[in-house]
Formats: sequence, structure tokens, C-alpha cells
Amino acid sequence: MTRKPALAVVGATGAVGAVMLEILSQHENVWGEIRLLASPRSAGRVLAVRGEECEVLALGEETLGGVDVALFLVPAEVSARWAPVAVARGAVVVDSSAAFRLDPEVPLVVPEVNPHAARIRPRGIVASPHDTTLAMIPAVGALHAEFGLRELVVSSYQAVSGEGRDAVAALRSQLSLVAGTELGSTPGDVRRAVGEAGLGPFAAPLALNVMPWAGVPADDGWSSEELGLRDETRRILDLPALRVAATCVRVPVLTAHSLTVHARFEREVTVERAHEILATSPGVVLYDDPASGGFPTPADVVGTDPTWVGRVRRALDDPCALELFVCGDNLRKGAALNSAQIAEAIAAEFSR
Amino acid sequence: MTRKPALAVVGATGAVGAVMLEILSQHENVWGEIRLLASPRSAGRVLAVRGEECEVLALGEETLGGVDVALFLVPAEVSARWAPVAVARGAVVVDSSAAFRLDPEVPLVVPEVNPHAARIRPRGIVASPHDTTLAMIPAVGALHAEFGLRELVVSSYQAVSGEGRDAVAALRSQLSLVAGTELGSTPGDVRRAVGEAGLGPFAAPLALNVMPWAGVPADDGWSSEELGLRDETRRILDLPALRVAATCVRVPVLTAHSLTVHARFEREVTVERAHEILATSPGVVLYDDPASGGFPTPADVVGTDPTWVGRVRRALDDPCALELFVCGDNLRKGAALNSAQIAEAIAAEFSR
Ligand SMILES: NC(=O)c1ccc[n+]([C@@H]2O[C@H](COP(=O)([O-])OP(=O)(O)OC[C@H]3O[C@@H](n4cnc5c(N)ncnc54)[C@H](OP(=O)(O)O)[C@@H]3O)[C@@H](O)[C@H]2O)c1
Ligand SMILES: NC(=O)c1ccc[n+]([C@@H]2O[C@H](COP(=O)([O-])OP(=O)(O)OC[C@H]3O[C@@H](n4cnc5c(N)ncnc54)[C@H](OP(=O)(O)O)[C@@H]3O)[C@@H](O)[C@H]2O)c1
Repeated sequence: MTRKPALAVVGATGAVGAVMLEILSQHENVWGEIRLLASPRSAGRVLAVRGEECEVLALGEETLGGVDVALFLVPAEVSARWAPVAVARGAVVVDSSAAFRLDPEVPLVVPEVNPHAARIRPRGIVASPHDTTLAMIPAVGALHAEFGLRELVVSSYQAVSGEGRDAVAALRSQLSLVAGTELGSTPGDVRRAVGEAGLGPFAAPLALNVMPWAGVPADDGWSSEELGLRDETRRILDLPALRVAATCVRVPVLTAHSLTVHARFEREVTVERAHEILATSPGVVLYDDPASGGFPTPADVVGTDPTWVGRVRRALDDPCALELFVCGDNLRKGAALNSAQIAEAIAAEFSR
Repeated sequence: MTRKPALAVVGATGAVGAVMLEILSQHENVWGEIRLLASPRSAGRVLAVRGEECEVLALGEETLGGVDVALFLVPAEVSARWAPVAVARGAVVVDSSAAFRLDPEVPLVVPEVNPHAARIRPRGIVASPHDTTLAMIPAVGALHAEFGLRELVVSSYQAVSGEGRDAVAALRSQLSLVAGTELGSTPGDVRRAVGEAGLGPFAAPLALNVMPWAGVPADDGWSSEELGLRDETRRILDLPALRVAATCVRVPVLTAHSLTVHARFEREVTVERAHEILATSPGVVLYDDPASGGFPTPADVVGTDPTWVGRVRRALDDPCALELFVCGDNLRKGAALNSAQIAEAIAAEFSR
């Protein structure tokens, strides 16, 4: 028997961290030591993992020592600073932030789609895609393998937990204030109630509202998340010239992102064949019986692992295009689960 | 001086009817008598219009007599039955239901886009488009006039009031129950709370959820509202071969529909020119300064007349395509206002 590799969970106290501790407690126990790290603010807190109490340590040079694999679940600037330190101290890093997703020397990996890419990691770092990309890529990747993808037009319905625990707290307090009012549909009502609760990290109220923005401003009116969807999809599918047009919209849902996908392929598609592919692809669940109310919604999908796909239709004016509605838990497959899958594949290397 | 024409408001007690009474009280007073009709259930109720109390009468042969213009704001089956009766009794009907929207002998009219069409009405009926079509068509029509529209890929974020007053009541009670719970993001929580409140007219919970469905099942997995968007847009823009792919999604917003629009044109587009067009088109407001939080959201738009447009971007992989986010009040321009505008144009015929 070889020794089991040691794991560090950096950012164990965050929204993604909390789900990671659940996943580590549920999955097969491939790890030796599991060390929980966060900012000095959290040092001394006690969290449960694998049924045991575990004290949170402050992230630092020392606390990164003796670790084989480090899961980084922290803001991008923290990853940018500390992931190279973890590598220098001997760990392989799996990073869930945006810090390295477009670094050509860092593979961007979705185990169901491009698992091989994780083996070549010149910087000792593997990146996990953005939660919005992850919500669609297992389904889109499977269809690409059959039909050859040429173009995507994507619109998102993103849950607030994608912005972290502060965003969840903001929507909760907005909702309780809004529910306490008469909930009139006159213009002032929602604004007023939400004004008292505060916008949290958002530029507009989210209770009883939607907001066409996610991320930070990029060039020519695009948001960073819209460009990220394009760049990441191109990298993961190895289609550097793929046409992608995305609009990211935040909705008043706590957890689970949804997307509408218009996918144009090289070859003609049929709904029957698309159903077969989606029903048999790893990490994908087909749920497509709209006449009986059979379609995925965030309330169905939250807390589950796969990408759910429904509303599969062939475009009426283009025999090569499919319309889909996809839905996935942004904290599980969208973040913690994908990183855990990558880390487990790396752990398997240790026993070879 | 010619006499002012008499108006009947059929469905005065509904969600659209309530907004119609507001609009009739705010707009220039072009009407003589205004008669309020609804089902026998509402007969005897008293509603205010133009600052006066007015008793609701039951819809019937007699109560439709002596009317010049009849605004029908009732379910499609009621319009199908009674609009021809109103015409036979001498009225011009403006119908806001789906009953006649695809009838080749009934013009489908948006005054900012195809006002001329309202003059030719072989059946004596003019139809107003679906609220989702109306939320985008003033903006898309203006861009079409300049660039020549070839294709639309559209995703909707539809408010519950688009389904009428019962839908609004359902979301309100779902929200107050959900806000009373711990609002956990565990799968059961929302479902459980909503189970008690009831789904109303919907196939899934809408509090803290989104639902990829609007309308009734049509062929090949499409919903009636998705097909309606395609058929109506083709008719209004007189582009019978326009490529349209739509996915309709309901969101937990009380009033104001939003849509993402990917519009591909014959000619190359620029954001600058698109901005100029949108800023100067009737019935359209440009609100596009995302770096300072400048984009339309339902909370900004509810209670206002125009179609608001933001997030204008040229597709990165196609110089002929624009991305837009549009937002409009489904009860105003989406229903009552558009019908009122059509009726006012017809009223003007009476004074010529
Ligand atoms: N939420 C999602 O759906 C999602 C999906 C995909 C990717 N991601 C990415 O995953 C990362 C974590 O997201 P989240 O939603 O979990 O955020 P979050 O809820 O705000 O949690 C942030 C975590 O980072 C830790 N942290 C912050 N500053 C630190 C520092 N200077 N040193 C050490 N630890 C620090 C926090 O520790 P303290 O408790 O001590 O402050 C906390 O554990 C982000 O990069 C995010 O973009 C998130
Ligand atoms: N809501 C929107 O955003 C929207 C947008 C565009 C188009 N529309 C269309 O506009 C129409 C009205 O929609 P809504 O949302 O206002 O619906 P609603 O809130 O359910 O109101 C329905 C109205 O129709 C009346 N009605 C029902 N059955 C009747 C009958 N047998 N005889 C006479 N009156 C009858 C009701 O009167 P009682 O009070 O007496 O029952 C009520 O005034 C529908 O065709 C809808 O598709 C709605």
C-alpha cells in the first residue's frame, strides 16, 4: 500500500468551501490528512469534515507545507498570490478562481470532457472553469463530440451564490423586507424595500428583479463573465475559433445556474439522437417531457451533481441547430465537485 | 365638431384592464362614453376611470351595442366568441389575446413599427401582439430598418403578471411563505414552502426559482409562446422567412418582461450607430452604461411606457450581429398601452 496523499482545502470557510467539505465527507476517502485553511480571520474556527472536527488554520508558507494536493477556493487575487507558493512547497494546485483559467501553461479541466488535459501542468496548477461555463459544458461537449460544434448563443440565469456568501446574505435580507411590504408592482416598492436591505455586491436589487450583469467591465461593453464563457469554452473543447455570444444575467435564485443554449453544429441534428447522447453522457441528466411539466429548474437541481438538460428542440429554421435549457448546481459541479473530481484524479496518480 | 367615439373596455377587471383604466385616465381624452364590461361575476362592481366612478356591466349582445371601438382584454376563447359579435354590432375591435394574432385577415399592429397595417381590417378586428414580442419589437424594428434583419435568437425573462392576476397572487403567497422559512438552499426547502402556498397557474415553483416554460405545448417540444414570438415577429416586420429561435423562461418578477436578443443583420453593424438609432426611435429608451451600473432592469422599467434597451454589444465573432438586453412593462406597452395606441389611431379616423 502506498500512503494516501495529503490535501489542503484553502478557503474552507466560504460558500464553495462548505460544499467541498460535504463532498469530501461523501466521496470515497482517497485522502490522508485533510487540512483546512482560510484567512487569519477564521483561524481557530472548527469545521466538520469526514465526520471529524477540524480546526481552521491561517493560510501561510508553513501551513502549505507537507501537502500533496491543494484545493484553492478563494478569491482570484488570493489564488494568484498563494498558489505558486503551494507549488513551490511541493503541492499540485487545483484552483477554482479566475486567476489561471486563461494561462496557456495551466490546463482548464472538466473531467467528463477533457480529463487528459489535467496530466500536463507545466506550472503545477490545474484550473477549474467558471460556474457558468461548467453549467453547460458537459452537455455541450457531449453534443459536440457527435455533431461538431460551430457556434453558441448563450443567455444565463445565474444564482446569487455564484457571487459567494455575501451575495446570498444580501438576497435573503432583500427578500424578507420585500415580502414584508405589500409587494405592489408600482415602481417604487421593490426599490424602496431593497434600499433598506442594501444591494450587497450587486449593482441593482435582485429580489423580484433580474440584472443583466455578472463580473467586472471588460472591453466594448462586455462583462468579464461573458468573455470568460467564450474563452473557457474554446479552451475546454479545443476549438479556438468557436463563435460564442453570451449575455450573463443574475436572477433571484439562491443556488443553481440555468442557461439557454442555441448551438449550431457542422452536421444536421435530430432531437432523437440528441436525446440519446444526453441520456448516456457522464455527468448529464436528460429531463425533457415539457407536456407533463418535465424540465429542469433550479429547485429540482440544487444539491445534485449532474448538469440537467431539458427543452431540447431542433431550430425550426436551421436543421443544424439545437435549443437547450441546462441547469446545474453552481456550488457543486460549478465549483466544489469539479475541483474535487480533478483532485481525485491527481490523487490516483500517487498510487500508481 | 364631430362626436367623440364610444369605447368599450371588455375585461376591465383583469390585470391588463386595471392598467388600461389608468392609461385612459392619463391620456388625452379622445373618447365619448367609456363602458366597462367583464364577466357576469363582476357585474355591479364599481371602478374609477377618468376620475369618475363607473359600474361594470356583464358582457353580452346588448352591452356591446352603440360602441365604436371595443378593447378586448379577456382570455382568447372569450375574444374568439365575442369579438365578432362586437363587430356585427358596429364596433371596431382591438384584441389583446392570442385569438386573432395569426389570422391573415386581422392585422397585427405595433404603432411604432407598422402603423399603416391597422387601416386594412377585413374582419373589423385589429390584434395586438403578445407581451413578449412587444417587449422587443420597437427596438428590433428600428434596428431592422437600418441594418436589415436576418436572424434572431431570443431568450426571455418573463414576469408572472404576464399570466394574469392569479399568477401574481400565486407568486406573492409563495414568496411570503419562502421568506418565512430559513430560506436554506437545500433542495427540499423551497419546494416544501411553495407546496403549501400552491403553484397557481405554473408547473413549477417560481419563488427563488426560474421555469423554462410559458404557454401551452405545441409541436416538437416548442411552447406556444416560443412559436408566437417567431410568427408574430415575422408578421409585424413583414419578413416571412426570418429565422427565429426563442426560449421562453418565467422568472420571479411581478411585472416587466426582459429578453436577451442576438440579432444578425444583412449589413455590418457598429455599436455607435445602433446607439444612435435606439436613442432616437419612438417608444425606445437607450440605457447603456454598464460600467456605472447603467442597464435596464424590471425594477427600473415597471410602470413606464417605453421599451428600454441596454447591454448593446457587437458580437465578437460576427460583424453583422448585435447583442441586446431589452426590458418593458408587460402590462403597459406589452398589453394595455399598445392596444390603447391602436384604439386612439382608430378614434382619429372618426374625426376625419
Ligand atoms: N460561488 C460559486 O458558485 C463559485 C463557482 C466557481 C468558482 N468560484 C470561485 O471560488 C472561489 C471562492 O468562492 P466563494 O463563492 O466560496 O467565495 P466566498 O463565499 O466569499 O468565500 C471566500 C473564501 O476565501 C477565503 N479568503 C478570502 N481572503 C483570503 C485570504 N486573504 N487568505 C486566505 N483565505 C481567504 C475566505 O476565508 P475567510 O472566511 O477567512 O474570509 C473564504 O473561505 C472564488 O475564486 C470564486 O470565483 C465560486
Ligand atoms: N397580462 C399580460 O401581461 C398580457 C399581455 C398581453 C396580452 N394579454 C392578454 O390579455 C388578455 C387579458 O389578460 P389579463 O392578464 O388581464 O387576464 P386576467 O387578469 O386573468 O383578467 C381576465 C379578464 O377577462 C374577463 N373575463 C374572463 N372570462 C370572461 C367572460 N367569459 N366574459 C367576459 N369577461 C371575461 C375577466 O373578468 P372577471 O373579473 O369578471 O372574471 C377579467 O376582466 C388575455 O387574452 C391575455 O393573454 C395579457
